[in-house]
Amino acid sequence: MAGEFDLIARFFRPLAGPEGLGLLDDAACLKPTSGKDLIITKDMLVEDVHFRGADAAGSVAHKALAVNLSDLAAKGAIPRQYFLGLSIPKAYGQDWIAAFAAGLARAQLSFGLTLAGGDTTQNPDRAVVSVTMVGEVPSGAMVRRAGAAVGDTLYVSGSLGDAALGLKCLTGSLPRSAHLEDRYLHPQPRLTLGKGLTGVATACADVSDGLMADLGHICRASGVGAVVKRDSLPLSAAAASILQADEAFWPAIFSGGDDYELLFTAPEAHRDAVASLAQQSDTPITPIGHITRDKDVRLVDLKGELLQTDASGFDHFA
Amino acid sequence: MAGEFDLIARFFRPLAGPEGLGLLDDAACLKPTSGKDLIITKDMLVEDVHFRGADAAGSVAHKALAVNLSDLAAKGAIPRQYFLGLSIPKAYGQDWIAAFAAGLARAQLSFGLTLAGGDTTQNPDRAVVSVTMVGEVPSGAMVRRAGAAVGDTLYVSGSLGDAALGLKCLTGSLPRSAHLEDRYLHPQPRLTLGKGLTGVATACADVSDGLMADLGHICRASGVGAVVKRDSLPLSAAAASILQADEAFWPAIFSGGDDYELLFTAPEAHRDAVASLAQQSDTPITPIGHITRDKDVRLVDLKGELLQTDASGFDHFA
Repeated sequence: MAGEFDLIARFFRPLAGPEGLGLLDDAACLKPTSGKDLIITKDMLVEDVHFRGADAAGSVAHKALAVNLSDLAAKGAIPRQYFLGLSIPKAYGQDWIAAFAAGLARAQLSFGLTLAGGDTTQNPDRAVVSVTMVGEVPSGAMVRRAGAAVGDTLYVSGSLGDAALGLKCLTGSLPRSAHLEDRYLHPQPRLTLGKGLTGVATACADVSDGLMADLGHICRASGVGAVVKRDSLPLSAAAASILQADEAFWPAIFSGGDDYELLFTAPEAHRDAVASLAQQSDTPITPIGHITRDKDVRLVDLKGELLQTDASGFDHFA
Repeated sequence: MAGEFDLIARFFRPLAGPEGLGLLDDAACLKPTSGKDLIITKDMLVEDVHFRGADAAGSVAHKALAVNLSDLAAKGAIPRQYFLGLSIPKAYGQDWIAAFAAGLARAQLSFGLTLAGGDTTQNPDRAVVSVTMVGEVPSGAMVRRAGAAVGDTLYVSGSLGDAALGLKCLTGSLPRSAHLEDRYLHPQPRLTLGKGLTGVATACADVSDGLMADLGHICRASGVGAVVKRDSLPLSAAAASILQADEAFWPAIFSGGDDYELLFTAPEAHRDAVASLAQQSDTPITPIGHITRDKDVRLVDLKGELLQTDASGFDHFA
């Protein structure tokens, strides 16, 4: 394999924007735009924890950017630059790196951001991909997790549970499904919707740990609780047909992670604004419950009877 | 072990500054200072590649911040915030995390920065620590790698080779030496000197890959070459005595990595300014050579005879 600096020059320098200084310096230089705040997020993916060794390198690259883009979307931010820490076994070789860089290039182009720096190191056992991403919002306009108010309606974009079911398809515990597997492998950050939530949503988080867990994060940060009506949760046709055959898959819908949909709250007065946003961003948005003074996070059935109070999702150290 | 979110609340939230929003949100919110550029660097440390599994958790934390601080120092930047990606085996347990967080707390305090975000994940095999660090310089004042000019004097701070020799002490190929081992385990970023280099140095890099390699980076970025006089390289007393006993250790001085000294160039006209900086920052600064039109990077002996043209240092994929 070529040396570290040749690999950087060949595969990563073409991805760099002006802030990256040709990836020839010790650091990047960002000139902040006046009147904007910088929103910065950092999410690491570990092989066989967050993705499978069998996943195509281009899919891993897509996912590494998408999970960070989804955090920016949840804050109402527009993506600008990212930094890449890539740690891989030598045996991965140049073809893997080329395919990984091609995946980054495609994602950069569709989501409008450039590489600004990072580092490449060897890892004896497995790939670790660490992305730090920088976005911008108008000063003071970041959509926080901490703003949910009692009485707000709770909304979610798209459909839930597809990624968790898709992983089961890929690992053989459900029949193959191109739609569900693609939702797991190639999550689509809701950037257009997220940008529109500024001034409309009172709080927002992306659904990465699982609906109930991420709702728990919003509620704890806001000092409130929530009730979610299970039968209002939006399902894809593929997920609905799996549930029809076997109700045991319900937890994949409300506790499965990796959906990268936006979960947000808004007051009744913003109902029309939310409907307009759904249209403008061409994104389905479904009301699934509301925020309560009582601090529990509850999942209830059609009759309002309690199904679950547990807000747990994926926990790396549980 | 406690869950992921309890660990974050207990050990990492106390390290967070206001930009980190209590580590309760999807991202950090930075409000850039008017008239400043943001300098951002990202360096990942992998267990048994960049540090030893036997190293104390507090030392690993120190090193993870120090290597990034050193990049900021080389750019003339003042550190502000950092983001932490921590991926560790479950077996490391709470004591390791507590000691790691305590190491971060000590380093934050001495270097003046706070935690703004990041993530914590499981890793089946080994610890991976990925830090992204944000610093500030007055707009346009970043010291680049690309500014070295023909005729500039080449300077280096402190002493060279101590860390590479210290690692040999720790692994048993040299007798124990508290000084050398500490230089490997607890590198001290040259922040005060670095800040002073703004407007004085034409180019700067920190010595992380090894003197000749990092000089190669400056020269390639600047389109120049350099001559380094081996016998002018600054040595600690401990390193000098090892070389006196066995000349075979010379490559640790000019090719060993992990020194985290600053290597910089300045024109003859700035000679007094460099001397003042050495005094003000209480840092030894030694002229070790000069920049040439000829693009080779050469190491020569007292008589000017060529010892080496190889600019290679540590390469993760060589």
